[in-house]
Amino acid sequence: MGCAPMSHILFDEVMRFNPKNPYWFNRDRFVLSAGHGCMLQYALLHLAGYDSVKEEDLKQFRQWSSRTPGHPENFETPGVEVTTGPLGQGVGNAVGLALAEANLAARFNKPDATIVDHYTYVILGDGCNMEGISNEAASLAGHWGLNKLICFYDDNHISIDGSTDIAFTEDVEKRFEALGWHTIWVKNGNTGYDEIRAAIAEAKTIKDKPTMIKVTTTIGYGSPNKANSYSVHGSALGSKEVDATRKNLGWPYEPFVVPEEVKSHWSKHTKLGADLEAQWEASLAAYEKKYPTEAAEFKQLISGELPDGWDKALPVYTPESPGDATRNLSQTNLNALVKVLPGLIGGSADLASSNMTLLKAYGDFQKSTPEERNVRFGVREHGMGAISNGIALHGSGLIPYCATFFVFTDYMRGAIRLSALAEAGVIYVMTHDSIGLGEDGPTHQPIEHLASFRAMPNIFMFRPADGNETAGSYKVAVLSRKTPSILALSRQKLPQLAGSSIDAVSKGAYILSDNSSGNKPDLILIGTGSEVEIAAKAADVIRKEGKSVRVVSFPCWELFEKQSDEYKESVFPSEVTARVSVEAGSTFGWGKYVGSRGVAIGLDRFGASAPAGTLYKEFGFTVDNVVAKAKSLL
Amino acid sequence: MGCAPMSHILFDEVMRFNPKNPYWFNRDRFVLSAGHGCMLQYALLHLAGYDSVKEEDLKQFRQWSSRTPGHPENFETPGVEVTTGPLGQGVGNAVGLALAEANLAARFNKPDATIVDHYTYVILGDGCNMEGISNEAASLAGHWGLNKLICFYDDNHISIDGSTDIAFTEDVEKRFEALGWHTIWVKNGNTGYDEIRAAIAEAKTIKDKPTMIKVTTTIGYGSPNKANSYSVHGSALGSKEVDATRKNLGWPYEPFVVPEEVKSHWSKHTKLGADLEAQWEASLAAYEKKYPTEAAEFKQLISGELPDGWDKALPVYTPESPGDATRNLSQTNLNALVKVLPGLIGGSADLASSNMTLLKAYGDFQKSTPEERNVRFGVREHGMGAISNGIALHGSGLIPYCATFFVFTDYMRGAIRLSALAEAGVIYVMTHDSIGLGEDGPTHQPIEHLASFRAMPNIFMFRPADGNETAGSYKVAVLSRKTPSILALSRQKLPQLAGSSIDAVSKGAYILSDNSSGNKPDLILIGTGSEVEIAAKAADVIRKEGKSVRVVSFPCWELFEKQSDEYKESVFPSEVTARVSVEAGSTFGWGKYVGSRGVAIGLDRFGASAPAGTLYKEFGFTVDNVVAKAKSLL
Repeated sequence: MGCAPMSHILFDEVMRFNPKNPYWFNRDRFVLSAGHGCMLQYALLHLAGYDSVKEEDLKQFRQWSSRTPGHPENFETPGVEVTTGPLGQGVGNAVGLALAEANLAARFNKPDATIVDHYTYVILGDGCNMEGISNEAASLAGHWGLNKLICFYDDNHISIDGSTDIAFTEDVEKRFEALGWHTIWVKNGNTGYDEIRAAIAEAKTIKDKPTMIKVTTTIGYGSPNKANSYSVHGSALGSKEVDATRKNLGWPYEPFVVPEEVKSHWSKHTKLGADLEAQWEASLAAYEKKYPTEAAEFKQLISGELPDGWDKALPVYTPESPGDATRNLSQTNLNALVKVLPGLIGGSADLASSNMTLLKAYGDFQKSTPEERNVRFGVREHGMGAISNGIALHGSGLIPYCATFFVFTDYMRGAIRLSALAEAGVIYVMTHDSIGLGEDGPTHQPIEHLASFRAMPNIFMFRPADGNETAGSYKVAVLSRKTPSILALSRQKLPQLAGSSIDAVSKGAYILSDNSSGNKPDLILIGTGSEVEIAAKAADVIRKEGKSVRVVSFPCWELFEKQSDEYKESVFPSEVTARVSVEAGSTFGWGKYVGSRGVAIGLDRFGASAPAGTLYKEFGFTVDNVVAKAKSLL
Repeated sequence: MGCAPMSHILFDEVMRFNPKNPYWFNRDRFVLSAGHGCMLQYALLHLAGYDSVKEEDLKQFRQWSSRTPGHPENFETPGVEVTTGPLGQGVGNAVGLALAEANLAARFNKPDATIVDHYTYVILGDGCNMEGISNEAASLAGHWGLNKLICFYDDNHISIDGSTDIAFTEDVEKRFEALGWHTIWVKNGNTGYDEIRAAIAEAKTIKDKPTMIKVTTTIGYGSPNKANSYSVHGSALGSKEVDATRKNLGWPYEPFVVPEEVKSHWSKHTKLGADLEAQWEASLAAYEKKYPTEAAEFKQLISGELPDGWDKALPVYTPESPGDATRNLSQTNLNALVKVLPGLIGGSADLASSNMTLLKAYGDFQKSTPEERNVRFGVREHGMGAISNGIALHGSGLIPYCATFFVFTDYMRGAIRLSALAEAGVIYVMTHDSIGLGEDGPTHQPIEHLASFRAMPNIFMFRPADGNETAGSYKVAVLSRKTPSILALSRQKLPQLAGSSIDAVSKGAYILSDNSSGNKPDLILIGTGSEVEIAAKAADVIRKEGKSVRVVSFPCWELFEKQSDEYKESVFPSEVTARVSVEAGSTFGWGKYVGSRGVAIGLDRFGASAPAGTLYKEFGFTVDNVVAKAKSLL
């Protein structure tokens, strides 16, 4: 209720949108980072004329299959741009939305023709401001000078546990100034409408910095007994207090009844919105006449369709191709893809030279060069993930990728989970994927990470074994605009395998080699990533002893699970129970594929600091060990 | 090399430690948050006379089974206080170390007798400062006024990807001032020894704030060709450049050779350290005479041993005891335990009233009341985890717990993993453990989290089903000082189960009820947490139809895995293949226990916003569904 004035002004007076087309490209974006206040957002969408939030939707607040869930979800409610609730994520998303706008504006606008031009508005609370992710994102927004990003900090002094005095006494304005933001303080956010209007106007005059408007409000403003109390934070007022509040505010109407004069006032937005979109369409048509090539690229981009034949750019390898680390093969893919995918944009959390993520034909996205495509996130993994989600959910055909060491997905898991939930097709380029990274030791060596993402809904966890599988992983990742992908990539050199292919990856698991007939090998050896080579070599040894051995490469569990029962049986015939898996990570979950008779070779402890070869030997990731374990089953 | 002057001054002139007893209670703590520079720390420990780092250890840098791994690891190298490397964690750990000192000093020091009195020193770099976790921790340190925390910010302008200009242009000093810190700038950190000394002296005069000393240095200082270059960040100089650097610095000695005069200079620390410890022992003896009760508690606490009979305080329940949410039962346990465990201290990330973590007999740990035991972390999950690790690794018998919603372990996973790796026995109180939380919806509903922690080494993932199991989880968690524990607790009310017990939890899984004989039930129903009730009711239904059914409650997979084969077989006899598990979360990993014939009832998609009862019904967590699935196997 304390946020009502600022959000009312935003929706009714400031923001440019078309309620009948929530996906109009050039709309202003609004993010309620303090997502627990979503009823306000739903009410405004309803008033503004969005068909996604009818009166009956408001009545179904937080009910099964409603379009008004307990936190805003972009995939449920058109008009909601991003999914918020986990605090601070919305701030990061908003930085991504503003980055997308700045990048596209710099690439496509012309001195005489503007087709990309919108603001991104955010409301955040004390909780968002306490979260580290928001500091990371805000530091980048300041560094990049994203002046079309305007944040409202709802300074209500209250969080769930009580007054912010108990845990949050920093000087927020000064911190934002240190981060390179313009700041404005609206002292009376409860009723100071003109102050809020003036602050927004001032923010728009600032051309080189984002703006943070601190709006001092009273939580539950209008409630005579519960205003300024933490009990309002996540709980309903209760019917008695609602009645008292209605009286206090002089609001005589029944619940959910919108008075005619209010309806009539807000109804203007339907026409206004249609006009705004029509004006933009006219601008775009004029642009197209003057700049047909750019217009074609722009329209293709914002259509969300991939250019025809884009996947022909993916590199293909033969067993004779030189071996290489999959992180390097990934770089080859990224640099090949950027030539055919105008939407590709991304970078690393200060590890570009280790993650191998630089787009060589491009410079850095910076304040002075916003048209460029290499994003330098600094050591800010969580912010990077949330910004990437914002870029993806800008809905303009941009395909964000971002990178760090695989183990540091731990730092950004909150954002990765939201990629999965919010259907943001971010590509996570995660290198140094196992103990194979060697000397940096257990703080840097992922163990449980593959399992932890295989258990997460709506995300593809890839661990490619060579060049073709890396390209195949990228193929699925680029195609999957509503499912994020993680590519776990090796630091160490791997051979190009006989039997691998780009298309096989889309099946999740496939037969790399087999010397049996009739779908009845004596043994199945299963590997992922860098351990497929070991499985293949172990198979050679056992085959020489007269046994039939199938080698299965298993780059993506989730894709395999989507296959038909027939296909699954063709790869893992149920009657073949002699199965050995080998993967340099936790064995957790492998029971499903090796079965009760089989053996999962893995690592269920932390790693160690030593050269990679030593670690592989000490921890049993050797051909000899695989052969020995396999023979024990034959 | 740029950090050498400040760290040399710290170890040689400032810090109070006893190299022959790295665990002396009252030592100053040193944290190298920029852990990749650990060779410097090893060299200083070696010079200072620590037996853990001999010349041969230095020569074994980053080699298998050495005591000098690629990042500092407290569990490998006495003298190293905490495990660092993942950036920003060390800053959080240091805040925890300083909090522990402040709390114990306030509780035990007397106007005429000081027995707790040490500083915590940190060196952090640009990377640490970019991480959100360090901002969270620093904001709390400022709020708490932890004046005995002194941080050195190694301002070398270089991170792995190049100049910090590309991603880090904020005003760090101003930000720390906004967070309530005192700041000092040493402009010549390469050779300005006196400036550094003066800065430390100044920091010690500040009595109400932590201090951040920005020390401007040149990375790789002394190297004529590679100084001030990102190529020095994580890579060796190379032998040619090492030779050039030796010449440049006028250092004629062979590698690993410490000149006699240097040895002789540093050798003083052995005697100095012994004297310091002896003086402290004398102070403690004097204290003991005056304050025998407090001294007994203090000595007991820092011994790390738990008080005799502490576990008798754990509440016991019968099936007749009123049902309750396990989050409430957890609160009963915490409040019972704090009466017998003087080390218990902790709190929540702004959700104390939801997580039910308040210690009712205590006030808040605040700047003016540092003797209290309720810690208010604010909405700073990652910082909270790192601070809790610091409290645990203070080594003074403090037992930290911390809390948020289970789903937000995603925000603090980097710190939780370090609890596991660094053997910090933090207790993570994680409530709202499933879709059972209801209306807040999928952003707040954990799905994959149980699986993700079951896959992590050295951590106990508990999901208790009732009061006895909650108490049993706490019993193991308190006993496990080198293994962290996570308790996933329900928001919703659960009954007290017939057959549950505190001690059974220590087995990980146990038979809650069974109407079979000879270890051959027709069916095994397995549940965890809130779904054990459903399994038990389903068993009743099926038993009425003449079948023998075993119900297994499975609160902790890791503990079960530690049991003997005989015990495992006694719970899950291999010949019984009709098995159904029911858990309101991902089925990932359950294949191991239900086997290829069994059925895992779970949720492999995101949840939804609706009342909990509706969600349980819609997603199949009902007695009817369990009965139906079970019958399909009979």
